[in-house]
Amino acid sequence: MSLAPVLDRIDRDLPESLERLMGLLRIPSISTDPAFKEDCARAADWLVEDLKGLGFEAASVPTPGHPMVVAQGGTGGRHLLFYGHYDVQPVDPLNLWHRDPFDPEIQDTPKGKVIRARGAADDKGQLMTFLEALRAWKTVNGTLPCRLTIFLEGEEESGSPSLIPFMQEHAAELKADLALICDTGLHEDRVPAITTMLRGLLGEEITITGPAMDLHSGGYGGAAINPIRVLSKILAGLQDENGRIQVPGFYDDVDELPEAIRAQWQALSFDHAKFLGDVGLSVPAGEKDRTPLEMLWSRPTAEVNGIWGGYTGAGFKTVLPSEAHAKVSFRLVSRQDPDKLRAAFRDWVRGQLPADCKVEFHGHGNSPAGVMEISDPAFEAARGALTEEWGVPAAYVGCGGSIPIAGYFKTYLGMDAMLIGFGRDDDLIHSPNEKYDVECFHKGIRSWARVLDRIAKG
Amino acid sequence: MSLAPVLDRIDRDLPESLERLMGLLRIPSISTDPAFKEDCARAADWLVEDLKGLGFEAASVPTPGHPMVVAQGGTGGRHLLFYGHYDVQPVDPLNLWHRDPFDPEIQDTPKGKVIRARGAADDKGQLMTFLEALRAWKTVNGTLPCRLTIFLEGEEESGSPSLIPFMQEHAAELKADLALICDTGLHEDRVPAITTMLRGLLGEEITITGPAMDLHSGGYGGAAINPIRVLSKILAGLQDENGRIQVPGFYDDVDELPEAIRAQWQALSFDHAKFLGDVGLSVPAGEKDRTPLEMLWSRPTAEVNGIWGGYTGAGFKTVLPSEAHAKVSFRLVSRQDPDKLRAAFRDWVRGQLPADCKVEFHGHGNSPAGVMEISDPAFEAARGALTEEWGVPAAYVGCGGSIPIAGYFKTYLGMDAMLIGFGRDDDLIHSPNEKYDVECFHKGIRSWARVLDRIAKG
Repeated sequence: MSLAPVLDRIDRDLPESLERLMGLLRIPSISTDPAFKEDCARAADWLVEDLKGLGFEAASVPTPGHPMVVAQGGTGGRHLLFYGHYDVQPVDPLNLWHRDPFDPEIQDTPKGKVIRARGAADDKGQLMTFLEALRAWKTVNGTLPCRLTIFLEGEEESGSPSLIPFMQEHAAELKADLALICDTGLHEDRVPAITTMLRGLLGEEITITGPAMDLHSGGYGGAAINPIRVLSKILAGLQDENGRIQVPGFYDDVDELPEAIRAQWQALSFDHAKFLGDVGLSVPAGEKDRTPLEMLWSRPTAEVNGIWGGYTGAGFKTVLPSEAHAKVSFRLVSRQDPDKLRAAFRDWVRGQLPADCKVEFHGHGNSPAGVMEISDPAFEAARGALTEEWGVPAAYVGCGGSIPIAGYFKTYLGMDAMLIGFGRDDDLIHSPNEKYDVECFHKGIRSWARVLDRIAKG
Repeated sequence: MSLAPVLDRIDRDLPESLERLMGLLRIPSISTDPAFKEDCARAADWLVEDLKGLGFEAASVPTPGHPMVVAQGGTGGRHLLFYGHYDVQPVDPLNLWHRDPFDPEIQDTPKGKVIRARGAADDKGQLMTFLEALRAWKTVNGTLPCRLTIFLEGEEESGSPSLIPFMQEHAAELKADLALICDTGLHEDRVPAITTMLRGLLGEEITITGPAMDLHSGGYGGAAINPIRVLSKILAGLQDENGRIQVPGFYDDVDELPEAIRAQWQALSFDHAKFLGDVGLSVPAGEKDRTPLEMLWSRPTAEVNGIWGGYTGAGFKTVLPSEAHAKVSFRLVSRQDPDKLRAAFRDWVRGQLPADCKVEFHGHGNSPAGVMEISDPAFEAARGALTEEWGVPAAYVGCGGSIPIAGYFKTYLGMDAMLIGFGRDDDLIHSPNEKYDVECFHKGIRSWARVLDRIAKG
């Protein structure tokens, strides 16, 4: 089995690979909207058929939500699990799309050819890079590269309600030596990247109540406590003047970045000025002694995602409101425990409540950070393969966002995960006019062929 | 002309008087919301018709905003002007109302009968006490008690943008010997009161902008400035730990209360515990060294009346918003100059803006405090009349709210004003389920008949 004919095959079959992707993109598998339930099932069936064509035993397995696609195939070597998701984000506001989001098209742009459609990058285009690599491999070699489990979810864009129960119930089928996940991006559009640090997330909604009812600020202003003032004071105190979060114990389980990784990140020569400049900013707002890349990839944060209270309509109303609300989220890193920090945050808020005020909490997201175990030689092997394909040294990077699946694989299946993806920052995922560069799709397929060539033998 | 038959007539006609009030309450004349423009005009027309029925020459006079109702009637005696407002506050949050705010009803409550509707107390019920007193007077005596000008505004709840230009343009029609204003309350639900100190008002809307667009808090959280955090910090710093407002120069023109007035207020034996307890509170929240009555009647305040930014819907969205907003108001006393303090507040906010943030201001209300000239013998005459009707010595009191009209009458028409009203603290004005006690409405009508009987002859 040799790699060169597989890569040749990938190059020659690119038009057919694109046609297949467009077939999947035509299915409007919006998981959050019940109106598209049948379409989600159709997308799962489409993938089952495609996997059967590759020699997998594949099935669309029902859940209380949308089905999971689970397929088993190949023998020998290392047992790898591949994860992707076939569901997509809603398309509103539809009027901002330049064409039907589910009528995909290859378009020429000043930066090259793109596949334009909802899901082109997130995650149908990405998951198909892996299946197309397998197809070329099978065509050339007659077999799959090793024992493979394919696991494709249909609820990633709607909070994955069925995921953990499903993984617990099907642990025996899903457990492999290593998970491969294709739902991330290149670093700065050109550097192939393996994401080894993902931040966790802790979400809280706070409601502070003062007076028993809304009051007239003339009749009570001054004498009656104003819950907006109380809330503002608490939120203002979340960080000190150096950007350090003030919840007691917040940094207890935050590890400092290993020197090797810090050095690698510095070598990326990330353009901090451009990163901030692109969104109209010039000064990093977080911890004083950290670079923005560190802030985003390796440091925890506290953000207020929403605030409301009193009169917020047109004009003015001299109300002294009974309640004030905020949605607060924390991005977590290292060994920070969401449950422990949720309790610490609530205690910290309660400790600042003046007399006559009450607070209620409502918990939202809750996922620990993911820190990948890169001592597995597969990581260095994959890094070499990616470097070869892209002609630029591949990097271990962090990710400011939360991709909880990696942590779930560790927690529920005892399996490490390697996140490799080919998205670009301008892919407009979750936005109107989503696209995936044909170059990313093509080189993504070639990348997986190279990675599998190096790691499949175990 | 004798008083007793007028009072009898008022008692007998109470059911009809209530019916008329309910007709006015059915008109949703919310002045701050442009959607209710036609309704404001309808309320003005309703009053014009009612005044014509009392023998007035009355008209709804257009302004750039909502119309003014101006009526002239009666002859001889002292020329009195009566002022009220026919517009009402918005009704949100609508879900806290137990019935349609514009479908008034007489309800039995443990504390007696109430008229339940938006505007029942503020100010439709109150202004109708005066018109009903005139109606009974006219029915019994065949004439109005003296020369009268009626002046009813439709923009009181939205900052009165047309008021000053209108008064300047129509000064000749509006100028009288003394103005009577019915938009205040009883003291502690039972003591008839003439309000001689009113706080002024300064309203500001602040918009703080950070990033050029809404950002994903995973992709930017930590590194990008969050305008909600900036706004919270500014609002949290409005008062120090002793409740002192931190805008430089804020207290420069605040006079200490004269000893005589302080003594009278102490004699009122105001029940501070009950005042706060009625709205679910126990601890005064304002300046540490002041009683609640002083805080409300003679001290300036700063309040946040509304705040909003980011995602405020159901569930969670990890957005780092581009903008955050607040509506802030200051109650002013003594010689505090709204224009000077507006500039000082804006400078103070600008001085706290971090790099990369912008602020925009939008001015709302703007009125100085009012201090009445009580040497006119009409004041003592009215105090006697009120004492007779309510069986408790009437008092000169202060008012935490802003009724700028009294100051405007002095400034633009050279006319003193006497503020008499019959609202109670539990009327829920500006809140859901506003009401006006039938007893207040009834005795309010009787009170005006008595006051007019004493002061109309001049």
